[in-house]
Amino acid sequence: MKFIGESINTSIKRVREAVEQGDADYIKRLALAQQEAGASYIDVNCGTRIGDEVEKMDWLVKQVQEVCTLPLAIDSPSPAAIERGLSLTNNKKQPIINSITGEKERMAAILPLITRYKAKVIALLLDDQGMPSSAEDRVRIADNLIPALLDAGVPAEDIIVDPIVRPIGTGDTAGVEVFEAIGAIKERYPNVHFSIGLSNISHGIPVDEMTNHAFMIMCIMEGLDFGIVNILDEKIKGYALIAEALAGKDRFCAKLLKGYRKGYFPETQNYLDL
Amino acid sequence: MKFIGESINTSIKRVREAVEQGDADYIKRLALAQQEAGASYIDVNCGTRIGDEVEKMDWLVKQVQEVCTLPLAIDSPSPAAIERGLSLTNNKKQPIINSITGEKERMAAILPLITRYKAKVIALLLDDQGMPSSAEDRVRIADNLIPALLDAGVPAEDIIVDPIVRPIGTGDTAGVEVFEAIGAIKERYPNVHFSIGLSNISHGIPVDEMTNHAFMIMCIMEGLDFGIVNILDEKIKGYALIAEALAGKDRFCAKLLKGYRKGYFPETQNYLDL
Repeated sequence: MKFIGESINTSIKRVREAVEQGDADYIKRLALAQQEAGASYIDVNCGTRIGDEVEKMDWLVKQVQEVCTLPLAIDSPSPAAIERGLSLTNNKKQPIINSITGEKERMAAILPLITRYKAKVIALLLDDQGMPSSAEDRVRIADNLIPALLDAGVPAEDIIVDPIVRPIGTGDTAGVEVFEAIGAIKERYPNVHFSIGLSNISHGIPVDEMTNHAFMIMCIMEGLDFGIVNILDEKIKGYALIAEALAGKDRFCAKLLKGYRKGYFPETQNYLDL
Repeated sequence: MKFIGESINTSIKRVREAVEQGDADYIKRLALAQQEAGASYIDVNCGTRIGDEVEKMDWLVKQVQEVCTLPLAIDSPSPAAIERGLSLTNNKKQPIINSITGEKERMAAILPLITRYKAKVIALLLDDQGMPSSAEDRVRIADNLIPALLDAGVPAEDIIVDPIVRPIGTGDTAGVEVFEAIGAIKERYPNVHFSIGLSNISHGIPVDEMTNHAFMIMCIMEGLDFGIVNILDEKIKGYALIAEALAGKDRFCAKLLKGYRKGYFPETQNYLDL
């Protein structure tokens, strides 16, 4: 399981303030903290900065790369901001474009960037008909989007399918439709990867962290191998390692025990002292 | 999901000392704490007291029932101790016999007790060939044990199948073989329940609580609806409620939100104050 640290995102108030004030120090601390917590990629998103997004993306990417050795996920609704971000990334480390969709206009803008920068790409399962509302919707969109990427020469291993998670509070099938979609798409395209924006599942309910943990664990059973997450949640990496071991994907629990030595498992309690 | 609180068990040092010293007060606190934490049943086990087990079971059941309104799970290798425990339980609350197995001698001793006391029963999937080592083994044992119980007149709803969990540290298929067994047996016998002795999965590895949480969440996806657990783990009940909601088994997340109001979800942190 590889984690894309989600925290450098101007939709978070503290981060937006740092970007407005040019507080490079905070951005660097946030990047480094995510690297130390076990992220494999740092997501960089300033999509709330309409008007100066290209300039802010430029600034953010430079700050992060000054301190951080990880590859980046360049995350924007604006193709121009994505291109600026990609142009600045260290080209020895394959970046991720976050994201392409099945929308015609988005396809036309992003596809050339994937091949030009030899990037991985997150393929969000929405299209011109809007957001998916069932597992079947997601499979239908995947059946258009994935072949289009493959036909353009993107290797299957560089495609990271994001089935789109909606909050469990909006309907009690929100979890099940994602599990089913991952299972069905994995069967059709065994070499692509899967990612979710984990925090979406708990949006609007008062129980966020624990819901995120449980949903990630369940998705790992179905084949999830990437996640855009709050990697600063001190248990997220530990739960992923455990879930992979329990799903039979960690020979001799070697990664789990290595993670234990790295400190991904906070202390346990003794409950019998009543 | 119904929880059987596992803590009154003389294999736990602090409990063994309380039983040896006749410390009724500690036993009562332990029973009440489990009831308050959300247990549906209190397991009572003094199986380490060979020689005076019947007498100790008698004493334990009386102490627990003095303070606790929950039905009990009477848990012993000794049929005589089980019978004594059953004879003392409040007969308005259906107890659980923990457990019957596919072993011929055990079957002959326990089957009459189930029907005499109209108890629920945990059906452990082992037989005279020993412990199961694959999902197929478990299905084979279930195919002997469940029909024998049904033929004796035990309603399917009173049968709680325990597929037997072995520690993940003993082999990396320990999780997967349980998921597969639950799925396959549920398909064949849709009306029986499923339980696991949750703590077994993490026995011998240094990461116990989090492993137990993740394993329970994964088993709930497959249909687990009972668990013998450390209900004093302050997150176990919350994770079960979440997993049921995510698996589409909690209409409008009503149980999840009720559990939130009851305090089954400890506080979350703010990670952005770096």
